[in-house]
Amino acid sequence: MLSKSQIKLITSLKQKKYRQQHGFFVVEGVKTIKELLQSSVKLYALYTTETFNIDAKREFLISEAELKKISFLKTPNKALAVFNIPKEHPIDTSKLIVALDSVRDPGNLGTIIRLCDWFGVTDLVCSKETVDCFNPKVIQATMGSITRVNISYVDLVSFLKTTKPPKYGAFMNGDNVYKTTLVDNGILVMGNEANGISKAVEDLITDKISIPRFGELQETESLNVATATAILLSEFRRG
Amino acid sequence: MLSKSQIKLITSLKQKKYRQQHGFFVVEGVKTIKELLQSSVKLYALYTTETFNIDAKREFLISEAELKKISFLKTPNKALAVFNIPKEHPIDTSKLIVALDSVRDPGNLGTIIRLCDWFGVTDLVCSKETVDCFNPKVIQATMGSITRVNISYVDLVSFLKTTKPPKYGAFMNGDNVYKTTLVDNGILVMGNEANGISKAVEDLITDKISIPRFGELQETESLNVATATAILLSEFRRG
Repeated sequence: MLSKSQIKLITSLKQKKYRQQHGFFVVEGVKTIKELLQSSVKLYALYTTETFNIDAKREFLISEAELKKISFLKTPNKALAVFNIPKEHPIDTSKLIVALDSVRDPGNLGTIIRLCDWFGVTDLVCSKETVDCFNPKVIQATMGSITRVNISYVDLVSFLKTTKPPKYGAFMNGDNVYKTTLVDNGILVMGNEANGISKAVEDLITDKISIPRFGELQETESLNVATATAILLSEFRRG
Repeated sequence: MLSKSQIKLITSLKQKKYRQQHGFFVVEGVKTIKELLQSSVKLYALYTTETFNIDAKREFLISEAELKKISFLKTPNKALAVFNIPKEHPIDTSKLIVALDSVRDPGNLGTIIRLCDWFGVTDLVCSKETVDCFNPKVIQATMGSITRVNISYVDLVSFLKTTKPPKYGAFMNGDNVYKTTLVDNGILVMGNEANGISKAVEDLITDKISIPRFGELQETESLNVATATAILLSEFRRG
């Protein structure tokens, strides 16, 4: 049986301020939970309709009706786990880093985390205005990649000031990325969905790059930030 | 004032069978509607809270409360338009074509349509099991690109049998795409989110390609079909 205080705690974790206050985040679905259980992220409590055969103190068997009460999903997926938010590790500036300047859409951030994982980018640096990576929608979109990418929230302007060039930025009017020599110990900065990279960050960019448009009509406004990140990371890694 | 029959017609268009029966689809938001009004797609009726100053017979000024009744969005966006579903044009097999084998997620299809537009792919060929491109969530994700890409729903196996090679297919265990010579009058086939390319389609593929994984841990399961399409189209076009 779920207690009222358990329900209250779990549902509060939908909001960033309570995630930060308690130091917990929620993961749903058997597959992603299992992936996190195998990582260094620490489990606080598992609420499930079928046993996982883990530490009995941390596992609570509940009914589907109870799961529905605590789930953030329209169609709950057998289990919900509360994990401890892991500590941020120091940023390794000797390797390629992706930096996000105010990316707001949880699905975009989730996709970008998966891309970092795929392309071996171990550090993702986010401006304070970027959506929280422990937002349930981000977690849903990362599929476990969140355990393999070190995500840091920083003052992006200060961070860029303390790091060495090259600092690449994705712009609509940058140099053709296919004709640019990309050094893969730099920083790749991606901007906000609607406004791109902010002026203060733009001033610190050393190399503006762009993905050329091939359509005849030239009307497509821009690529989505996640698909643009996919193409640019591929360019950095293809050699 | 909206009549009951207008409300019934519009809300029915959420479902594919009624879109096909009536030959209409719904577009929401001032920006996307304006983009479609400038295209060859024919307007049937515009329901809006602020006048667009178009043909008075086709424009209906409504209240925000009325818009809320007919909108498919949680937060309606000033206007909703009903357009005639355009006729499919013949497929031009002399150029690069993207073909989808049972892509089910509306957001993925919408992103892929935008990518085709960006990379100058004029024909997108979908298996009958692929999500309908006039699904409101697809339209929301395409941002007007739908008017610039000719989308055909076909029996994909029959279509591939009648076309010339090369027929590229995205597989987890294909050849490294960065080391493959890509001919850009071929067909690029992308598979279903969970199951990839079906066996019957796989048998018709002449070149299996893959995006290499760079992470050390090799645990990321796969890239999302839309981000994989982004990377592969970039490879076809970069030259």
